Amino acid sequence: MSGNIISGRSAVTEALKSGRHIDKIYMVNGAEGSAKKIAAMAKERRIPVVFKDRKALDRMADGVAHQGVIAQSAPYSYAEVSDILENASSKGESPFIVILDGIEDPHNLGAIMRSAEGAGAHGVIIPKRRAAELTDTAVKASAGAAEYMPCARVTNIARTIDELKEKGVWIWGCDMGGENYSDADLSGGIALVIGNEGKGISRIVREKCDFTVSIPMRGRIESLNASNAAAVLMYEIDRRRHK
Amino acid sequence: MSGNIISGRSAVTEALKSGRHIDKIYMVNGAEGSAKKIAAMAKERRIPVVFKDRKALDRMADGVAHQGVIAQSAPYSYAEVSDILENASSKGESPFIVILDGIEDPHNLGAIMRSAEGAGAHGVIIPKRRAAELTDTAVKASAGAAEYMPCARVTNIARTIDELKEKGVWIWGCDMGGENYSDADLSGGIALVIGNEGKGISRIVREKCDFTVSIPMRGRIESLNASNAAAVLMYEIDRRRHK
Repeated sequence: MSGNIISGRSAVTEALKSGRHIDKIYMVNGAEGSAKKIAAMAKERRIPVVFKDRKALDRMADGVAHQGVIAQSAPYSYAEVSDILENASSKGESPFIVILDGIEDPHNLGAIMRSAEGAGAHGVIIPKRRAAELTDTAVKASAGAAEYMPCARVTNIARTIDELKEKGVWIWGCDMGGENYSDADLSGGIALVIGNEGKGISRIVREKCDFTVSIPMRGRIESLNASNAAAVLMYEIDRRRHK
Repeated sequence: MSGNIISGRSAVTEALKSGRHIDKIYMVNGAEGSAKKIAAMAKERRIPVVFKDRKALDRMADGVAHQGVIAQSAPYSYAEVSDILENASSKGESPFIVILDGIEDPHNLGAIMRSAEGAGAHGVIIPKRRAAELTDTAVKASAGAAEYMPCARVTNIARTIDELKEKGVWIWGCDMGGENYSDADLSGGIALVIGNEGKGISRIVREKCDFTVSIPMRGRIESLNASNAAAVLMYEIDRRRHK
């Protein structure tokens, strides 16, 4: 199928609410409950709803749980870094950006988008190569956040960091052996760098960071899941901004 | 195959480090790098290492990424709630417990175990029915935390909450419309309740909570991923305990 497939009732509901362009909605014959609400929303927005049997939806969803509802949309449209900075300045806020240096798991990417949107970040930056993209799985895991918050895809994270520094943004890398996040001065324009699930932040990007910050590990495990670590740090930044 | 399958190099390494009983380790023919370190650790602990071709490992791992290394172990052995309380008192700390009221995704369960171990919690409690168990997928997502921290499986979460209350533990539910977590008095013995990914905390369990606490949502999304929300709250509890 052409375009993007958004599977599942809450993902489709969020996509409809966001005003994102949707070509068509597919529903399983006799879909009940929240599916009826979705059909009503689609009608209001003049989006055709097509009824199919469950097997047809299974094929479209390609293994993703669809709960009898699928939307076909234009592919995810990435933003530019300038859109993210513009998002901050239009709100009169100093930039709060999340840079993902090689996150590979689309569920992590989606969960980080979701938490970033919740914590009031202005956008997420991902690299074009060797990293998860905003595929259907990631968009679904973002629970709608991918519709509301810009995500920019750049060729070279290190170069983008240089550009952000020129705009007065401080670069904080999440890494072992850094300052305890809860003592760190997280004020001003900030870009939080989260590294790859296994390997952490790459050497070249780590060298670009102004500071490194760590989450204390009280037990024997060395690190948190990448999206969990990102959430803890993003909400610490949010807490400081709303003191 | 009988017993539990632990797939992937870091999961197997953690299982070996933890001293957990492992029957056998399977490696792909010609495995290099960290696999050699794992083989050496296994030799030290007199655990047989069997070499097989990649296809045989693929079959054992049943779709989970194994990176050429699989351990076969005894099934996960659940703890009792009393073990969790004992874990707290042996450290001279007031209890810090995480109750999962119907988490369905084993990746979320594993990530929460991992963050709970990192944040210094004493144990996790899950229900016996309608919830993710500590399967191989969850154990792997826990990155070793399932080896170090007790997880109790109970028939009735509401009854367990009553027992914890009798021990002087305060029950905090994570729910919309609660007090901002960053203003909440999270002192003393505490059990943090995290609800189901879609439906949140069940009515009967919500009624048992002493307090509800919320994470502010600055954008348009209504909630965080369950493991991200749990991580933010668990690390807030940790921060208060280490002020």
